[in-house]
Amino acid sequence: MHGCKPPRYTAPVKASILAVGDELLGTDRLDTNSLALTEVLRRRGVELVSKAVVGDDVVVIAEALDALRERAELLLVTGGLGPTRDDLTREGVARLLGRSVAVDEAEWDRIERGFRKLGRRIPRVNRKQAERVEGAEMLPNRAGVAPGQRIEDAAPSPRGTTYFLFPGVPRELHALLEDALDPWLAARAEDGAGFDQVEMRVACLPESVVEERIAQVYEHFGDGNVSVLARPGEIRLRLRAGGAVEGRAPRLAEMEAAVRDALGDAVFYVGPIEDGVEFEGAVGGLLAARGETVAVAESCTGGLLGQRLTATAGSSAWFVGGYLTYSNRLKKRLLGVPRETLVEYGAVSKPTALAMAAGARERCGSDYGIGITGVAGPGGGSESRPVGTVHIAVAGPADSRSHFEARFPGDRARVRQLSTQFALEMLRRMLLSGEGPADALPWAAPSRMGPP
Amino acid sequence: MHGCKPPRYTAPVKASILAVGDELLGTDRLDTNSLALTEVLRRRGVELVSKAVVGDDVVVIAEALDALRERAELLLVTGGLGPTRDDLTREGVARLLGRSVAVDEAEWDRIERGFRKLGRRIPRVNRKQAERVEGAEMLPNRAGVAPGQRIEDAAPSPRGTTYFLFPGVPRELHALLEDALDPWLAARAEDGAGFDQVEMRVACLPESVVEERIAQVYEHFGDGNVSVLARPGEIRLRLRAGGAVEGRAPRLAEMEAAVRDALGDAVFYVGPIEDGVEFEGAVGGLLAARGETVAVAESCTGGLLGQRLTATAGSSAWFVGGYLTYSNRLKKRLLGVPRETLVEYGAVSKPTALAMAAGARERCGSDYGIGITGVAGPGGGSESRPVGTVHIAVAGPADSRSHFEARFPGDRARVRQLSTQFALEMLRRMLLSGEGPADALPWAAPSRMGPP
Repeated sequence: MHGCKPPRYTAPVKASILAVGDELLGTDRLDTNSLALTEVLRRRGVELVSKAVVGDDVVVIAEALDALRERAELLLVTGGLGPTRDDLTREGVARLLGRSVAVDEAEWDRIERGFRKLGRRIPRVNRKQAERVEGAEMLPNRAGVAPGQRIEDAAPSPRGTTYFLFPGVPRELHALLEDALDPWLAARAEDGAGFDQVEMRVACLPESVVEERIAQVYEHFGDGNVSVLARPGEIRLRLRAGGAVEGRAPRLAEMEAAVRDALGDAVFYVGPIEDGVEFEGAVGGLLAARGETVAVAESCTGGLLGQRLTATAGSSAWFVGGYLTYSNRLKKRLLGVPRETLVEYGAVSKPTALAMAAGARERCGSDYGIGITGVAGPGGGSESRPVGTVHIAVAGPADSRSHFEARFPGDRARVRQLSTQFALEMLRRMLLSGEGPADALPWAAPSRMGPP
Repeated sequence: MHGCKPPRYTAPVKASILAVGDELLGTDRLDTNSLALTEVLRRRGVELVSKAVVGDDVVVIAEALDALRERAELLLVTGGLGPTRDDLTREGVARLLGRSVAVDEAEWDRIERGFRKLGRRIPRVNRKQAERVEGAEMLPNRAGVAPGQRIEDAAPSPRGTTYFLFPGVPRELHALLEDALDPWLAARAEDGAGFDQVEMRVACLPESVVEERIAQVYEHFGDGNVSVLARPGEIRLRLRAGGAVEGRAPRLAEMEAAVRDALGDAVFYVGPIEDGVEFEGAVGGLLAARGETVAVAESCTGGLLGQRLTATAGSSAWFVGGYLTYSNRLKKRLLGVPRETLVEYGAVSKPTALAMAAGARERCGSDYGIGITGVAGPGGGSESRPVGTVHIAVAGPADSRSHFEARFPGDRARVRQLSTQFALEMLRRMLLSGEGPADALPWAAPSRMGPP
């Protein structure tokens, strides 16, 4: 092991992130890697004080690190570990620290052997990826060629700095975060540093309603331990438990129970923050568990609901198909919406939405049918049916039906997204309750149901 | 005018961007404002050397700017101009420069008057937004309350530094970029600094084929003046003309013609980089111009094609509707795909795709019909039809038809996205050529058509 020293700092630690690469200074790409790094830092109680991006330039890399090390004792560098002459992160760090860079022959052997096992040969140009900054510990990369590196340095006195160099390819970075950074931080964190987290997701409740309902959770567990992330038609609550490690799981369970008390059936997901279940997948899973299926009849959403219901692998278990009936003619011809209904109430109306839902259900032979018809905008609005007016209906077994009239805020894309979100929630409510008249829904009153 | 000095530098100028805000150091949000800033810098020939993000902390803001001014003479700061005590950008800059911050009463009057005109009153807490760094020129914000500020400072000697402070709200930032930064840079740019740009977009050609075909364009106009951005199923070419301003438009026209010579009908958009037409909108526009309509029959894409065709306002001019036939039963029942076709060739086959396209066209009464059936994965693949196998068919007037069998790389989302992309391109080809047998398509051979 090179440069391996005993733990020497105590929490809280301050960290900065530097992303290297000319492509990250253009008009198209952002450094998204820093989000994954930040997640690991948070988990281990390390404060992120700044992020920076520089191009492929040895001097600029060295100068940027020089400035960052003044404010943070942990510097995380991504990118610039590739095999080309533009990959200059190793050289930049070496320049700053006054160290050398040379091929680590043991590492190169390891890389060559890995390739040989797969029946392939690695070009000699890749030798650059086995270059090691003097004194660095190499961090094996199970998802790619270039290993990461960890370097300890005494400057600035007296506290010193730890540098981690990671590849910029997200898959490789994520592997190294899990294999190298997280365990390293975990081993050095003081007992009680960092926190465990759990996420709870809720659809179709306005942020203000969620805040109001969980007020006592804030009060009881502390503001800083609950955070609320609002997306269009969805709220994500993050519950945090810090302190002694053994107390965290029980406290999270307590918090979760308190939120459930406050929000009830509205919660559709509880679990880890990463790889959480998307709303459409949660609804699909509910159908699959009951061995039931759904069909759709979409007008203003034009296929978005079907697309969401089939975005998850295995969706043929719950989705059979449906109709896109953009024109009135097709609403009649394909779905059997009566001409009189269209004439008397219009295409954007409760009777039309109900007829669409029933038509999709019957003609596709599914257990449930969903009908959506509305004015997505920007054109097509009228005084009585302004842009954002959407009628959504669900038809289920034994004549169960629900209907909802919405006035969604926002542009065309937002209105369409919210329409499908509310349609999925109506279906979910009907599945949970057996039958689901709209009045039982917390957002039945049009004036308060639109998200903020 | 405060602190207004005559132009004093010559191109090329170096710039750095600093984004301020605790929320930009979390796990959810990135500093996307820097992309718009970078676009303006590029246009005016200013080199971006680094980007940084810091939290709401006076000392950290000042220290970050101190480091950045060593490497760049133009510092662009976004965020932290709001009315709360967390908004500390003004204070951070003042601290660095040893200047004071005080309410600019003239500015406050202007803000108050603006609100009064709208029949509203502005709370006194907003007075903070009229605070001015000593010596700063205020930059009026037509999209919001807080003005931007421009500050000239003599350090570091001898070249000095120019600071621009912008609000973090994207709409307000964009207004100030247009009103303040761009004209300021334009006035100071040397004749011949910066460049004009035009974007050309191409769908469904592999990047390697595009590169090969435009090799002589590179050669003739210089590598640095053509850049290639690859997305799944779409290539965007940016053509750049620098030098004397009056020569740029003719040179761009020449480059555009050369690319058209090389790529022909594959180009679906030529125009500004911002607000470019999306592919589905371009295809829809082509239909609308001919007064023709399309209907869809989707299996593995589950509604994604319909959703894309209706994402653009006014899509009822070209889209009538269609069928989502996820199950074989519905392929027969709704679309009339013969049972024998499904039995003999399978659901994922050329005859099924053709029958779906024809069924959608006939039953919806549209001019064109598109059928898509395939294995999106991750499950459902077999040796003869591995994941990524997709059959796409278009049926048009007078028995015109085209068919394409693809083996798309990537995950479920990618396969579905590429399926709709190729379906749209097949329709576009048929619209352009009158009839479009698949053999005429440049990507007819399955082995070379998948994007890299």
